[in-house]
Formats: sequence, C-alpha cells, structure tokens
Amino acid sequence: MALGATSEQVAQVTAHIEALGLKAHPIPGAQRVAIGITGNPGALEPALFESLPGVLEVIPVSHPYKLVSREVKPDVTVVTVGGVRIGGGHFAVIAGPCSVENADQTLSAARSVRAAGAHILRGGAFKPRTSPYSFQGLGKPGLEILRDVGRQTGLPVVSEALDEESLDLVVEYCDMIQIGARNMQNFSLLRTCGRARKPVLLKRGMAATIEELLMAAEYVLSEGNYEVVLCERGIRTFADHTRNTLDLAAVVAVQRLSHLPIIVDPSHGTGKRHKVIPMGRAAAAVGADGLMIEVHHDPARALSDAAQQVMPEELAQLMQQLPVLLPLTGRHLSAHAVGQERQV
Amino acid sequence: MALGATSEQVAQVTAHIEALGLKAHPIPGAQRVAIGITGNPGALEPALFESLPGVLEVIPVSHPYKLVSREVKPDVTVVTVGGVRIGGGHFAVIAGPCSVENADQTLSAARSVRAAGAHILRGGAFKPRTSPYSFQGLGKPGLEILRDVGRQTGLPVVSEALDEESLDLVVEYCDMIQIGARNMQNFSLLRTCGRARKPVLLKRGMAATIEELLMAAEYVLSEGNYEVVLCERGIRTFADHTRNTLDLAAVVAVQRLSHLPIIVDPSHGTGKRHKVIPMGRAAAAVGADGLMIEVHHDPARALSDAAQQVMPEELAQLMQQLPVLLPLTGRHLSAHAVGQERQV
Amino acid sequence: MALGATSEQVAQVTAHIEALGLKAHPIPGAQRVAIGITGNPGALEPALFESLPGVLEVIPVSHPYKLVSREVKPDVTVVTVGGVRIGGGHFAVIAGPCSVENADQTLSAARSVRAAGAHILRGGAFKPRTSPYSFQGLGKPGLEILRDVGRQTGLPVVSEALDEESLDLVVEYCDMIQIGARNMQNFSLLRTCGRARKPVLLKRGMAATIEELLMAAEYVLSEGNYEVVLCERGIRTFADHTRNTLDLAAVVAVQRLSHLPIIVDPSHGTGKRHKVIPMGRAAAAVGADGLMIEVHHDPARALSDAAQQVMPEELAQLMQQLPVLLPLTGRHLSAHAVGQERQV
Amino acid sequence: MALGATSEQVAQVTAHIEALGLKAHPIPGAQRVAIGITGNPGALEPALFESLPGVLEVIPVSHPYKLVSREVKPDVTVVTVGGVRIGGGHFAVIAGPCSVENADQTLSAARSVRAAGAHILRGGAFKPRTSPYSFQGLGKPGLEILRDVGRQTGLPVVSEALDEESLDLVVEYCDMIQIGARNMQNFSLLRTCGRARKPVLLKRGMAATIEELLMAAEYVLSEGNYEVVLCERGIRTFADHTRNTLDLAAVVAVQRLSHLPIIVDPSHGTGKRHKVIPMGRAAAAVGADGLMIEVHHDPARALSDAAQQVMPEELAQLMQQLPVLLPLTGRHLSAHAVGQERQV
Repeated sequence: MALGATSEQVAQVTAHIEALGLKAHPIPGAQRVAIGITGNPGALEPALFESLPGVLEVIPVSHPYKLVSREVKPDVTVVTVGGVRIGGGHFAVIAGPCSVENADQTLSAARSVRAAGAHILRGGAFKPRTSPYSFQGLGKPGLEILRDVGRQTGLPVVSEALDEESLDLVVEYCDMIQIGARNMQNFSLLRTCGRARKPVLLKRGMAATIEELLMAAEYVLSEGNYEVVLCERGIRTFADHTRNTLDLAAVVAVQRLSHLPIIVDPSHGTGKRHKVIPMGRAAAAVGADGLMIEVHHDPARALSDAAQQVMPEELAQLMQQLPVLLPLTGRHLSAHAVGQERQV
Repeated sequence: MALGATSEQVAQVTAHIEALGLKAHPIPGAQRVAIGITGNPGALEPALFESLPGVLEVIPVSHPYKLVSREVKPDVTVVTVGGVRIGGGHFAVIAGPCSVENADQTLSAARSVRAAGAHILRGGAFKPRTSPYSFQGLGKPGLEILRDVGRQTGLPVVSEALDEESLDLVVEYCDMIQIGARNMQNFSLLRTCGRARKPVLLKRGMAATIEELLMAAEYVLSEGNYEVVLCERGIRTFADHTRNTLDLAAVVAVQRLSHLPIIVDPSHGTGKRHKVIPMGRAAAAVGADGLMIEVHHDPARALSDAAQQVMPEELAQLMQQLPVLLPLTGRHLSAHAVGQERQV
Repeated sequence: MALGATSEQVAQVTAHIEALGLKAHPIPGAQRVAIGITGNPGALEPALFESLPGVLEVIPVSHPYKLVSREVKPDVTVVTVGGVRIGGGHFAVIAGPCSVENADQTLSAARSVRAAGAHILRGGAFKPRTSPYSFQGLGKPGLEILRDVGRQTGLPVVSEALDEESLDLVVEYCDMIQIGARNMQNFSLLRTCGRARKPVLLKRGMAATIEELLMAAEYVLSEGNYEVVLCERGIRTFADHTRNTLDLAAVVAVQRLSHLPIIVDPSHGTGKRHKVIPMGRAAAAVGADGLMIEVHHDPARALSDAAQQVMPEELAQLMQQLPVLLPLTGRHLSAHAVGQERQV
Repeated sequence: MALGATSEQVAQVTAHIEALGLKAHPIPGAQRVAIGITGNPGALEPALFESLPGVLEVIPVSHPYKLVSREVKPDVTVVTVGGVRIGGGHFAVIAGPCSVENADQTLSAARSVRAAGAHILRGGAFKPRTSPYSFQGLGKPGLEILRDVGRQTGLPVVSEALDEESLDLVVEYCDMIQIGARNMQNFSLLRTCGRARKPVLLKRGMAATIEELLMAAEYVLSEGNYEVVLCERGIRTFADHTRNTLDLAAVVAVQRLSHLPIIVDPSHGTGKRHKVIPMGRAAAAVGADGLMIEVHHDPARALSDAAQQVMPEELAQLMQQLPVLLPLTGRHLSAHAVGQERQV
C-alpha cells in the first residue's frame, strides 16, 4: 500500500482479495502496510489490484515463501514477548535452565539470569528426549513453576511445546511458544501455532536448509500468526568437536530473505560449555537479534544437557560485553519488561 | 525365559516385575519368550528374577535401547501387514503412487503394482509438504480410495500419518501406519503409534543416527506395539547428484543391533528416477527385508515427487530380478495376501 | 569420426586441430574414434572441422568436463591392467592387504586372494597416515616385494603413489597407479599421472562431488592418459555407524555422465569388517565395474586399518556370489591375466 | 624445563634425548622452554629425564599430537611473518586478491589493502582449480609481481604452494607459505614445508576434523618448522546458502588443544560477498588470532572467485570495528611491518 494509505483503503483491498476467494494477510510495518495474498492456485494478474485506491505496487513473489519474505514486507518485524521486544534493533537474551526441575532451582536460576541482565526466562517442562526412558520434564506442574517464577522475577517466560496438548498448556502459562528443532517440520503443530495468540520461537532443524526454515515459518504465518522469531541452533555435520555445527552465516542469509527476527542458541549449537560464551559473542557480532542460552547453578547436577549449561557468572560476563558489540550492527540491548521493576 | 517355559510362568514373571513397580514387556519369539523390563530408574539386581520358574537368564542391557535390542530378543521379528510377512527371511515390496490423486489413478497404479508382483500398496493421503501452498493430499477421502482399491486388488495398504487426527484415520482405513522421516522424533506421535493396534513403518530421519532411529522405535515398543518395520530412506549430505544419500550400510548396522525388520526406500533415497531401480537392487543385495518404491503411470504428470517415481514396467523388471538376488542373503519373496486371489 | 574413418583421416583432423593452436585427444572406442579438443579459450565454430574427411559430427560440450564425458565418447572405456580388463561389462576384483608388511605376509595374502578368484593384487608401500608417527609403509622395498609376489602368483599389482617420487617408483614396479582420496585434488600429482604410461585408479575424495571427481579425472586425461578407473570409497557425513558413508548411487551417476569405469571400495567405504562383504555385494548389484577389498590373514595383527580387512574365506564367499549378481547388470567376471597360468 | 633453565641445560637434555635414539624438539615459549620428544615407539619412562638439571616436569602426551599440543607447550606460539606477529594477543589481517592477475591490479589492491589497515598481502600465483581448463595462475611471474608490490607497499606477502616446485618458489619470493584446504593431507608437501625456513599458513580441509588439522600441523612441526598458523575456512555440509559452512567453534577447539595461532578465512568460508564482513566480525568476536580476506577492486571482473571478494571500502569498515572487538578476547591489532613506513 502507498505510504499514506488509510485503514479504510487497506480494508477495501482486503475485501477485494477475499471476494476473489483468496486469503489476505495485512502486515503492518513501520512505514506502510503490506498485504500478502495466498490461496491463489497460479499466478494472478497484477491489474486486478493495481488500480484500487491506496495500492502502490503489486509484486509477484518468485520465492516459494510469501508472507515471511522481505519482498512482500521490507520492514523488519519486531516481535514483543511479554513486553520485551526482539528484532528491529532490539537484542534480547533468553536464558534459564534446560529443564524446570523444581521451584527452588528455577527461582534461583531466574534470579541469577535476571541479575545478569537477561530479558526472558526459558525452562523446559516437556522435553523431547531421544530415549523414552530419559527424564521427560515435569509437564504442567513445570509450567506452573515457570509462570510463578516468571511473575515473581518480572521475566516473561518461554517453554517448548511438543504436541497439541502441551501447546495448549504452553499458550496458557507462557509468553512465548518454543517449537524445537525436531518439530521444525511437524506441519500440523506449526499450523496450530499459527492459530495461537502467542509469539512463536521456531528453531531450525538439524538438517534443514534456510529455505526449509523459512517455509516452516510460512506455515505459522499463513494461519494468521505473524509473531515468529527464528532460531539458529546448529546443524549436523561430520565435525565431532561440537555436538552440532553452529551455522552463523544463516543469520545473514535469513535477514536478507526475510523480515522475521533471528536469534542464536549457542548452547545446543555447540553442546560444550566452554564454547557457549565465545559463540554467543560471535552471534552478537554477526548481527543476530538475540541469544538463547542455557544456564544452571550447578551444571554437573542438571537433569538434562549438563554438558552445555553455563554458570550464571559466565552469562553475566557476556551480558557486559554486549553493549560494546551490538552497536557494530546497529543494535542495542532490548528494554526489560515493565514487570521486572517488581523487586524480588 | 527357558525354551519350555509355559505361559503361566511368563505370566508369573510378568506379575512379579509389575509388583516391583516396573513395566514388563513379554515379546514372543520363534523359539522362546523374552521379557523386557522398563521403568527402572537404575540398574536392577538380576537375582530378583533369576530364581523364578522358567527364567533362563537375566541380561542387563547396556545399550540405551532395550526392547528393540537383539540382546533382549535374539530372534528376528516378523511383522505381518494384512497377511503379508516382512522380516525373518520374508522380503516384501511396498509400491504405489506418492499421493492418492483420485480413484482412477490409484486403481490403475494398484493393478500395475500388483501385476508387477508387489505385496503392499502405498499412497499418501496426508502429505508433509515443505510449503503450506503445495498439494497437501486428499485427506480422509484419499484414505477411502486407498482402502477400496486395496480391497479390490487384494493388496494391504499403508499410508502416512502426520498427527493424532490423521493417525486415527490411518489406523481405521489402512493395514499399516507410516511415520515419515520428518516425524521420526515426533515423540508424542510415536507414543500414540505405540498404543495403536496396527503395524508401524518408521522411516529414518534425514539427520538421524542409527541409535536415534532405534530409540525412536523404542518409543513405539515401550507403549506395547512391537510390530515395527524400520526404513532407510537416505540422509542429508553435501552430495548433490541425489536428493539424499542412501546409506545402505545402515541395513547391516540395524540388523546387528536390533531384531526389527528394515526395508529400504530408494525413491526418496535418491530422488532421481533413473537411480531407483539400481539402488533397489543394491538394497536387496545388502540384505534388506523389503523395499518401498514409488510408482506412477505417468510420472511427468504426478502431483508430487514426479522426479522419483518409476514406471510400472521398471518395477516389474526389478521384481523379476529379486528371486535371483534374495537367496544370496537367505531371503525369499514374501507370499502375497490371501485377498489377492480375488481377481480384479 | 564416422564409423569407417581411416587412421589417416584421424591424423589429418588431429593435425588440423593442432595447427589451430589447440590440443587434440584421439580416443579410440569400440566402434568409432572420438577426438576431444581442449585448449580453446572460448567456444569454437563447428564449421572449422565439420567438412574435414571422416568427420561425422562436431559436438560442443556443455559440461565442464570434456574428455571424461559420454557426450564426447558414448562408448564405455575398457581399461586393461596387466592383462585384466575393467569396464565394458568386465568386472574385476582388486584385493590384498592394506599394507605390504613383509614378503611372507604378502605372498600368503596374494595366494589366498588368487585362490578366492580375485584378479589384481593391492598392497600399500607408501601410506598416507593422519599421524606422522604412524607406520608409513615400507617404501621402495615394499614395492619390490609386491612386484615379486605379483609375478610369482600371476597377479597384476596396484599400489598408491603420494608424490612425484613415489609415483615414479609405482610406475616402475606396478601395473596400476592408485591415487588416494586425500590426493584427489592434488592437481600437480594428477597431471604427472597424466604423463605416466600406466593406468590410474582414482579414488573419490571424502568431500568430493561427482563433478569434482570427474574433473580430477579430466586432469589426467587432459595430459594424454586415458586409462583411468574411478573408485567410490565413501564420503564424510554425520553417520557414525560406519567410518564413511558409501555412496553407491555415485556409480549410477558416474556411468550416466562418463565413459570411464567405476569400481567400489567397501573396505574404506564402511571401515567395519562385518559390513564389507554385504556392501561389496550391493556394489555389484548396483552395476559397478569392479571391487577393491582389503584382505588380511590375521586382521587383528595388521599394521594398519585392522578394523576393515576381511578374511580370505569371506572374500571367497563373495566371489562365488558374483556370477549370480553380475548378469543382472549385463556384466561378467573379467578373465584373469595370462600370467596367472604360472602355477605357484 | 624449569623457569630459570639455562640454554646449556636445554642443550644437555636435548643431547640426552638424542643419545637415546630419539628426536628432541626444543620449543621456546614466552616464559620457559618446552622440549618435545618424538621417535619413541612406545611409552617412555619419565625417570629417564626427570633428574636432569633444569627439568621441571615430564608429561606423557596422551593425544595423538605431540608438538602441536598445549600439554607439551602451554604458552601460545607467536608466529612472525615479515615482521608482523600473529598469535599471543596479536591479531593480524591478511588481505588481497584471490589471484595475482597483473602488476597494476596487484599494486592497486595492495595499496587499498594497506590503506584499509591490513598487515599482510595475499595473492595466488598457483591456483588449485577444479577444472584443468580454468585459469591456473601466473606462476613464477605472479610471485615476482607479488614480491615487488609487497616491497613497494611495505607489506609482507603470502601465496599458496601446490607442490615441491611451487613451494621452492614461494619460499624464495614470499614471507609465508600457504597450504590450501585440498592439500591439508598432502603429507609429502607438509613434510617439505617442515624443512622450509618460512612460516606456514595451513588451511583446514573441507572434510577435516580438528584432530586431523592438528595432525597435519604435526607433520610440519615434526620436521622442525614450528612456525605454523592454522586457518578455519569452512567445511562441506548440506547447507546451500553458503559455499561452505564456516565452523567458528573450531577456533575455540583449536585454542584449547594447541598452542598454535588460528585465523579465519570468511571469504572461502562463505563464498558470498555479502556474508564475508559479518562473518569476519564474528571470527574476531570468537577469539581468532587473525583474518584472511579476499579483496578486489572490481569483483565482477576478477579472474577467479569473483563471488566472494569484497571491495576495499568494506574491508576498511571492518578494520575500524576491530579495535572495539578485539579487547573482548584480550587481543589487539598487530603492529605493521617496519617496512610499511616506506611511503608509496
């Protein structure tokens, strides 16, 4: 739409699109509104829309992705999670234990994470474990602990959903839904996320190309949820000095193709505690929009992923380096949620 | 259990295990019954069971997998799909179109597949597509077509389930549930398969190790469904002359570690029509327990995966070579389902 | 050239090409002679050659490879190694120890290899070892042992060259030069091979695409040595159940693009003794032109690569299965070298 | 050796080692001298050396690498290239065109590289090209141009050697020998580098593990040349948004295991111009000891690797960001060679 297009004009164009049996996706940007069109079996005639009032340009999208594409929406998307902004220059740090183990561990992890300066608390209640006999997470009670600890410490919370049932609970208790690498192409779950009213953190699959990651996000957006943050977390390669190979160039690739924010998870991306902070620093330098880091008071006794959780003081050191790094890519630390004022 | 152990003795040992708060998994073999024990937080004292009547030996399992392991159950498992046996020397061929497109296409594909000598009809009704805008399959009407065509041609049928909803339908309409590569670590779906009363065809994920594949099967078995057939379908590598790199050595690896049958899918494993039949032949030579091959009358007009579907006459040529190949590894073509007598 | 083109006509066309400052490569086939042209900075005008006597057709080659391409020379190439033919339906088996350790070990290996029915004896005298402190091979004395044992048992011999110096020795003592995976893109060594008067066995690099393998062969052919046999020996992937992932579809890919023979090395391709024979069988089924297998009397005491060397009786079993397998792809076991008549 | 050990004591220990038929490698560090021992067939008795004057400790090395290991020599190594230090906190930038094309192009590239603040000039005269028909470099005349331009602009120069012949020339004309990724396991060439009296830049192979990279360096050190700088330049994976996947965690891995400096090549590591600078910044943030970047005045007209060469002004921007980044890992920009004073 043109710069000065009114909301009535947007509504008219939307109605026109829907009258043709297509689906309209108005996506507000900082300067102008873009309207994505999906549901067309083949190419559409631009003339169908070009002469409508307020329409600036009709751009046929050549890539397989439409709604996630920067061609459709050149303005970058800013996703807000419980008051914390991610993207558009706002750099947010998500931190916390791999798993919610109990209220005490979660509260002390949250306090140290907050003291270190992180913005959002993570903690798994439903764990995708390779073995059916490994600790599978506390489930709903874990989410209750996470929500309570989040409220107490003023931190928005994010947790992973594995299926429709856990997704309903995550939507109820958390500020953001995490979809893990193993479910990146669980298209049914992605569609359900698309109908949820909470932002989604979508992690790249271990063998996924950038195009596949963007198409997975497209599943969420195509159902109407435009609040998606992508996450690079390492790919599977022959290299054996890390658990996965963190592909930082993916950040640059995504930012060229899409308007969605992308953060980096150096914990899963390396699987080795001593590599987490250096790679987190590298992710900030390359231009990521945030980090997701696993922190545990006592990594040696963690119930899951002990080898990759850092100590709170290591996180704190990284947080102190970020104000130096972020301006190099035109970024700054995001403001904390207002609730954080509530002292604990 | 000892060779001559009675079913009462098996029941007694099972009861004893359950009285200890553990889960017992009696797995009948050709010669003896093995009883897997799961649910133990740490190592168990073998003496707890050794002196019970009918117990031959108590084997602590060192691998992370238990029920899928040949250590627990040395006899290979024979899975029966609508009367067709897979494993234990029985080599079965699953063939059919990538997608069920309509009744005519499916019936003619089924007739040619049966004429070629294949045992089981495949056809997708729920398609996991990278793009939300690609053809997603006919859904329930597709399954109805598949079931009807299967009955008409005397072929058992298999189709892919993507989530709980489609799984319910596949269980209702098909003889076997297929879990695709993208869902190999959809643990929630695997558990639901474990409670289904139909055999499961579990495909290896594109970035999955053999251990991860076996652990995924363990999820199904641990819920009580021991009828699992594994499927090698290619892994993601840098090689660009095929869509995936078919890892035939995986067949040998699985057969050493597990009693479950394993088949090979050279269609997805190569993604190139001219490589499907040679690699299918190689899979038979290496000792696989079956094949899964996409066949289409008119590959150029298929709605999905056109590049990898072979012509019925190509399948027929391969079927004629199998009786030469299979005896080299102590295998033979499985008998057809009795229903196949019903001439079409 | 046309079917009935005389050798004078070939010489005339060659002279014409060279008069233009280009390089001519006459490549005799079963039915006709092809003449490759290299050295042209850009596209050449076909009319320059079309009207010369004996010229049938001028085909501009679109692929980056020229001399290795089937477009240039549709007839498959048959390479002869000390009297043993490889390619064009002739299936040859190269076998022997990883390293020449001493005369006794080599002779007993050669006898059992010959008794099993293999055609060519392999044995390393210059070993490319990851560590400078590992056994590096016997060098020239090793080649002397290999040559003597080959003569004694009537088997042509092949050994690896690592650099110009060892290449000179291999050319002097052996019937075939092996270029290992690590040197596949040692272009200087490839050029020197191209000027050698012995056939070359060129192994695919661990991270090489098919195009890169063919281009490496092109280096050899472009210097005038057209006797090149390619070898698939596994690529590096994340899969950890084998040392490398044997990419058997590469055989089909190469045979479509090139006229050169391609064999398979399941020893390095799996790195696990129990997988060598099954994968060797699969390689024969897919249509390879031969095998290269490491055999040792006492694998547990081998000085190198103990984990992947099979026992002579395992090789013998495979050799007995080959006459069943090879006709499926229009192949047959190659005839043994005449020298093999000399009884030992 | 102990902190205050005299050079006589070092000589005595060295003589003692050699008297035992072993090879001694005295490696001077900032604070103390370490003496590596190689040539021992099995484990040595520490008591053989412990009581010699000046000996502090005898450490049996468990890793396969010895001389490259931090266990043997905890002090990091500082390599000096024509007066420019790399390692030990000194961060050096190597820049220049992919290939030396002619004197004018090289001089203007060198001037802009120097103006941007880079320390060492790179330029290929012997190019390892996939195709024998691609531009192979100017050879010796190219090295002459590079040397002259280096002298004129006060920049030390580095160029790649492909074989013994080109190595002799590179040693003669350049300040540093580059060994490319394709030759990382050209053990013969590595040994020759070990006998050269110039520092070596050793690039990681496309499919090499960290252990293999360190063992390749061990080949050089074991021949007596301890001046080795390692270089991460990307590995081969399925990811297709870059030419290679730059594995920045390798920097951390190498620095834990080895005392050798390691730099990063984001040009080959991404193969995409727009990703070079962001990944160079990330490399500095992760703690690399330097960068190697391809720069061309007119990338669109470069004779090789046009897609990955950045403009001089892009390099200049990165150089301005380094003083902000380097202190985060205790590093600083290396001082320029004294010759740079000579104004051009």
